[in-house]
Amino acid sequence: MLAAVETGGTKIFCAVSRRDDPHTLVDSIRIPTQQPEVTLAAINEFLLKHHSSEGLDAVGVASFGPLDTSPGSSTYGYITTTPKAGWLNIDLHRALDGLGKVPVGFVTDVTGSLLGERALGAATGLDTVAYATVGTGVGVGVMVQGQVVSGHGTPELGHILVRRHPQDTFAGLCSYHGDCLEGLASGPAIQARWGRPAEGTEREIIAYYVAQLVVAVTLAIAPARIVIGGGVAKTTGLLDAVREQAGTLMAGYVGASHPIQDPASDYIVWPDLGDLAGVHGALVLAESLLAE
Amino acid sequence: MLAAVETGGTKIFCAVSRRDDPHTLVDSIRIPTQQPEVTLAAINEFLLKHHSSEGLDAVGVASFGPLDTSPGSSTYGYITTTPKAGWLNIDLHRALDGLGKVPVGFVTDVTGSLLGERALGAATGLDTVAYATVGTGVGVGVMVQGQVVSGHGTPELGHILVRRHPQDTFAGLCSYHGDCLEGLASGPAIQARWGRPAEGTEREIIAYYVAQLVVAVTLAIAPARIVIGGGVAKTTGLLDAVREQAGTLMAGYVGASHPIQDPASDYIVWPDLGDLAGVHGALVLAESLLAE
Repeated sequence: MLAAVETGGTKIFCAVSRRDDPHTLVDSIRIPTQQPEVTLAAINEFLLKHHSSEGLDAVGVASFGPLDTSPGSSTYGYITTTPKAGWLNIDLHRALDGLGKVPVGFVTDVTGSLLGERALGAATGLDTVAYATVGTGVGVGVMVQGQVVSGHGTPELGHILVRRHPQDTFAGLCSYHGDCLEGLASGPAIQARWGRPAEGTEREIIAYYVAQLVVAVTLAIAPARIVIGGGVAKTTGLLDAVREQAGTLMAGYVGASHPIQDPASDYIVWPDLGDLAGVHGALVLAESLLAE
Repeated sequence: MLAAVETGGTKIFCAVSRRDDPHTLVDSIRIPTQQPEVTLAAINEFLLKHHSSEGLDAVGVASFGPLDTSPGSSTYGYITTTPKAGWLNIDLHRALDGLGKVPVGFVTDVTGSLLGERALGAATGLDTVAYATVGTGVGVGVMVQGQVVSGHGTPELGHILVRRHPQDTFAGLCSYHGDCLEGLASGPAIQARWGRPAEGTEREIIAYYVAQLVVAVTLAIAPARIVIGGGVAKTTGLLDAVREQAGTLMAGYVGASHPIQDPASDYIVWPDLGDLAGVHGALVLAESLLAE
């Protein structure tokens, strides 16, 4: 049996599946994200139940972060510098008590979604691809030639410094950078400016920032596609505006035939799996631990 | 025998070495970069001479670009959209006439330098690493977990949109983007503003842009090190200013212990090989063709 744990800022999703049919969820639960003691104990209870009845072979964990995803690190599997109250320096291994030597792997939430969308969804079959979420935060998971990018630290393209839109005077909300991408384009930043979802010129401003992420990712890893999910990305017309502005900003530099230049192409797409992407990605991770 | 060709905007460097001692150059020549007919014929003459006497087993080419580096593409090995007079849509295979079925590989000039520095120089032993050149142009070569990043197009981080320095009103020189990184921080952009190398506040302005590249690369691929070469990077004090500003801009987001936060760390370094990096990288490429 494979087990998957996706920890989000507001809810946790746990599931188990059979190794010979890894993407059919045999059992699953959703748990609200509360303080770590309560939350990790609830995850542990679900996992232990299945480990004692069927035996778990591997566990994949996709978690909000910043998360230490370097297997050699002394804080591998820790949530590190999060501003989320109570979750600073929390060791997610505490959710795994009693599983003994069952292999466990950790990836960030966006990498989990990337792996899920690549297995079953909008990135199926693509080897160089990015998954971005624009919502409460802005995060990006990146795969290059079939390998998740996770080296010395974790890719955190949600915090790139974007060029300011001339009509946007908002100071930005990022506690590190003020007006980085996340500080300007996250749901809370939109809420703080306008008290409601962006529309009209506001939507163009947010799209201008997200389009800069698309350009940066394109220039950095040359992906075949960029999947963009998250609450802000659901804003009516936003992705269309991103498609337009990304082409304008790139200005043909990567070639006129590159799909970033065609707003009707499938270069920038919605996720297919919705909030199931992370748990399916965690199952992919669990499978990969057994293949090693 | 292995052969290497490095084509730069002003000069070409060709070399051959023995397979059992690939980084000792048995013979080499330097040729000024003129019109393609003359230049490619001179490369061809050097390669043919060695092919007919010793027999070449593989050729690695590291070239200025934009270069099509996708082996499946119909224009693989072409210089594509370059503004360099006469070199638009030039097929570099024309330098290889008479070599028959000798395998040949193409990488961009910065990727060549990256491979060279990784084999013998400032990036020895590192698997996730970036090499940037800031000179006549701005280019970045990227390796993730031992693989050169070269997917759907080629990484071109030299053209990221940077945030403008408040004291810099220069419009920028990039023919695509105006004031992207290359448009603001390249040698010609510095020359156009000040007529001489940057110093004092000017140097801080250029360092601010290069530091944004360092931050973007760090957030994108989480490298263990970033090697920065090129004529502009040689400006006295510039790299020190980049080290300072990169840490300031990152503001601890990837952790206080990340070497980007310590200007005295070896996170941002000079190349070790100088103008030999490209040709040694091309030899690494030639070797890798034989390993396949």
